[in-house]
Amino acid sequence: MKIIESPRDMQRQIEALRLAGETIGFVPTMGALHEGHLELVRRARKENSQVVVSIFVNPMQFRPGEDFEKYPRVLERDCELLQCNHCDLVFAPEKNALVDERAVTFVKVEKLGERWEGEIRPGHFRGVATIVAKLFNVVRAHRAYFGEKDFQQLKIIEALARDLNFEIEIVPSPTIRENDGLALSSRNAYLNAEDRAAAPTIFQALTAAQKLVANGESSAQKINDAMQKIIDAQQRLQREYSVVVDAQTLEPLQILTQRKPARAMIAARAGNTRLIDNAALEIPK
Amino acid sequence: MKIIESPRDMQRQIEALRLAGETIGFVPTMGALHEGHLELVRRARKENSQVVVSIFVNPMQFRPGEDFEKYPRVLERDCELLQCNHCDLVFAPEKNALVDERAVTFVKVEKLGERWEGEIRPGHFRGVATIVAKLFNVVRAHRAYFGEKDFQQLKIIEALARDLNFEIEIVPSPTIRENDGLALSSRNAYLNAEDRAAAPTIFQALTAAQKLVANGESSAQKINDAMQKIIDAQQRLQREYSVVVDAQTLEPLQILTQRKPARAMIAARAGNTRLIDNAALEIPK
Repeated sequence: MKIIESPRDMQRQIEALRLAGETIGFVPTMGALHEGHLELVRRARKENSQVVVSIFVNPMQFRPGEDFEKYPRVLERDCELLQCNHCDLVFAPEKNALVDERAVTFVKVEKLGERWEGEIRPGHFRGVATIVAKLFNVVRAHRAYFGEKDFQQLKIIEALARDLNFEIEIVPSPTIRENDGLALSSRNAYLNAEDRAAAPTIFQALTAAQKLVANGESSAQKINDAMQKIIDAQQRLQREYSVVVDAQTLEPLQILTQRKPARAMIAARAGNTRLIDNAALEIPK
Repeated sequence: MKIIESPRDMQRQIEALRLAGETIGFVPTMGALHEGHLELVRRARKENSQVVVSIFVNPMQFRPGEDFEKYPRVLERDCELLQCNHCDLVFAPEKNALVDERAVTFVKVEKLGERWEGEIRPGHFRGVATIVAKLFNVVRAHRAYFGEKDFQQLKIIEALARDLNFEIEIVPSPTIRENDGLALSSRNAYLNAEDRAAAPTIFQALTAAQKLVANGESSAQKINDAMQKIIDAQQRLQREYSVVVDAQTLEPLQILTQRKPARAMIAARAGNTRLIDNAALEIPK
């Protein structure tokens, strides 16, 4: 496994691999890898002849006062895990090698990027879209793998790739969870014991929404009310949103129908830690 | 010479060419080709093994009320000219093949894109930057050629390529002029006889600025005054701006110095036709 720090070197490596006829699977991460990331790596491993993982804590997607400084950085451990999972290339640029303070070019995904996380974290998705466009140009892969845990981010990256004609297949992968349902996230490490114990309530609310829909409920309002009640009953969680949306546009739904895939999305705060999660709502036939 | 209409087909062609070890020179245009464009094609021909020219009147860079509808479209003639100049591939997509009304992703170049043309034509450079990012992803060239006549656009595209890590060399090329100094532009065709006769005044103002600098003038204000006086004396021209700027940042300069390359930029209207032009200001040693 090779570790590459310079974007130029990475571009040269990729060009050589492509000229040699290799197919390239790419997993962009901010490091602090968990089983969710490793599942993406294993899938990329199966579907491509070369696997590239980037590790870069992107300053552009953090707002002032957010956790950019304290975000966990454990490059050595990450590289050990990647080696175990048969990654070929790690792209681990220094901050200034990839993000230049003099940069004036930004990629913005309108509409999709304005609601939910975009409303609570203004500028966040602009930072995400800009760094992903950069990474796609540095690691010119055939396929890129993203977890569904960050569902809004996934939709934004699908739109970005489609709208800007990036020649890359975006492959979504299901959320990996702890036994009690908590979605894996590098930020779970911030939780103290009490907040960790409370956190699976989010998954319970999503599961309740799925059950309502499975039992024939088609009113988004009723599903929203049920989710809100479950979250609000957990005093350690401060709910930010819980909502049933159109899974393509992320606009709130009124009525669930077979025609439009629906998704339940939740964000809540436990202490200073934001937790987000989501689930597909399968309407019975 | 092959004409390709679909972005996907173009991507496949380019991939095959790159795998075969070809180097690709790319000239993006809106068609209605003139000697300025053909000079770029000839330069691309010299410096690459394959030459690709795109012809696409980009709706995103026109504002409501501008000349999108009447912009000259002469694809057959353009293709004849390109064949004469040994172009290999023409990318001529249908409007809807490249620009989708449902697209939500846009590329914006801040600062550089906000002044001058950006102020007079809000949204114009966002349209330019977005389409150029798309074209760079469709026609993955080694070099792309742009005329200096659209100097602000050139600077924006240089920033875009650098900031988003596009693996492409941006090659600027000097403005081609009529014998009387008028910079070649597809929009010159809009000029009636009187306006056409008045139009070279812009070049005369730029030349006057160059002479002042050559003779030791270092006050931008004095140079600006001189340009303004020349333009305003021509009653058929309505001056929009005439200004000495830092050639990198396009911010107005106060004093010309050896350290900072300077550029004079002018925009004026003749009837309904906007004319823009610019020139380097070489400070004597």
